[in-house]
Order: sequence, then C-alpha cells, then structure tokens
Amino acid sequence: MSLDGAYDDDNIFAKILRGEAPCVKVHEDGDVLCFMDIFPQSPGHVLVVPKARARNMLDLDDGALKAAVVQVKRMAKAVKTALDPEGVVVTQFNGAQAGQTVFHIHFHVIPRWRHQPLGRHGGGQADMDELKQQAAKIAAALD
Amino acid sequence: MSLDGAYDDDNIFAKILRGEAPCVKVHEDGDVLCFMDIFPQSPGHVLVVPKARARNMLDLDDGALKAAVVQVKRMAKAVKTALDPEGVVVTQFNGAQAGQTVFHIHFHVIPRWRHQPLGRHGGGQADMDELKQQAAKIAAALD
Repeated sequence: MSLDGAYDDDNIFAKILRGEAPCVKVHEDGDVLCFMDIFPQSPGHVLVVPKARARNMLDLDDGALKAAVVQVKRMAKAVKTALDPEGVVVTQFNGAQAGQTVFHIHFHVIPRWRHQPLGRHGGGQADMDELKQQAAKIAAALD
Repeated sequence: MSLDGAYDDDNIFAKILRGEAPCVKVHEDGDVLCFMDIFPQSPGHVLVVPKARARNMLDLDDGALKAAVVQVKRMAKAVKTALDPEGVVVTQFNGAQAGQTVFHIHFHVIPRWRHQPLGRHGGGQADMDELKQQAAKIAAALD
C-alpha cells in the first residue's frame, strides 16, 4: 500500500480502538491507546496508537501528533523504569515500503539490551501472560 | 553510552547547532535545525535536531518535543513531495544500545523505495553536491 489512499476502518487497530478486538492495554486517554505489541521485537515492546482516524504521520493533524508524541516519551520513560533496558528505540513507519503493516498511525517503543538481538517484527506471537505482566509493570511505572 | 549520564557539549550536533561545524541545511527555526545526514541510509535522509540541550527523548521537555515532532512530520511531507518515495521511515534512538551514535536528541526521516535496500548508517559519506541538491528540493517542497 502506498503513502496515499483511503483510511480502511477495518484495520486491526481501528477494531482495537472500537473495542471490537482485544489488546493488552498499558494506558488510555482521550488521545491515544497504548498496548503491548503481540509480535514484539523485544520484551516490553509497546505501541502508541493515536485515536485519530489517520493512516500515517503525514495524515495526522498537528494537535493529535503532539499529544501522541508526549505519550511516546512517557511510555519510553516507563519502559526504562519498569524493565531497565540499555536503550529505547522509537520507530514510526509510513507506507508498506517503510515497513508499515497496519495502516493506522502508530509509534513503536522498543526497549533494547546488549547481547539481545532485535527480533523480526511478526516473528512470533508473544505469550499473553508475559505481555500482561509487562503491561502491568510498565503501567505502574508511568509518571 | 547508557541512557543516563551528562550531556556532552562537544558532540557533533552541538557543534553544528553552534555553527562550529558545517551542515547541509534544509530548515531552521527557533526550535529545530533540519539538515541532511552525511551518512545517509537512503537518498534524502534528513535529520531533525531539536535545539534544546538534551541527550535523548527521555531528557527532552514536552514543549520542545512537540515542536520537534511537528517539524518531523513537515520534513516527511516535504521529502515525499520532493523525492516521491514509496514510504517514509521515522526513527529516534535513545542510548547506544538502541543505535544512537550522536548523543544529542535527533529524529531520522528516511525515504524508502521498493528495490532499494536500506543502507547501513555510517556505511559511507554522501557526495556533498548531491546532498545540497536534495536539500534544495526538500526545502522547496516545505509547506
């Protein structure tokens, strides 16, 4: 899918935002829903999903973008406090050729440790109990 | 270098911000300096560097972060208009283990095309004339 095109209301994040599909939630407010990536590239991989109906960053209005990035930072800090990674990667992909697989704007917050190579996204589904434990630790560390 | 620690005023981006080192500029305002990455992962790879004295996103105050992300989006749109990529990757690395090599907060805006694999960052220095041409095209496409 190219950078242009219409928003698809049946994408999985739209369903999660509408409560029609489950997620392991870390945080929700009027602007964003933050939940664990079920195909984590690293333990503690969190997604920050703006609630606005936008395919990618280029489509997102500035107000929603600003609100989202503050939550990205907040998640990065909470992941650091909760899981003590040595680094935190933030990525945001626009278009299939950029690695985007769900066409609703989202940010990845991915903790990194030495000696632990980054997993391939979609390499394997995480254990749900582990995700719930990680989400609880990260939520408890939110400022 | 870990996620914690002091800001080093001698990092290369601090020198560029102070005008003590050169850059191929795309845009500058009170909040950010945007310039071409001289070790591009793809032709048109732009850096958005907040002027605030912060090592990473976790250190950056919310106001500076919001101002920066609006410019990240603006660069992504201008890169799309100027170079017509099929995708745009946005990355922001916190800590050496996350891939950060310059310890001043920055965002990467990287155009992607099918059939053109992403280059290794630091794989080779770009031709300066090419960078200047790309910067002029991107600057001309800014909204």
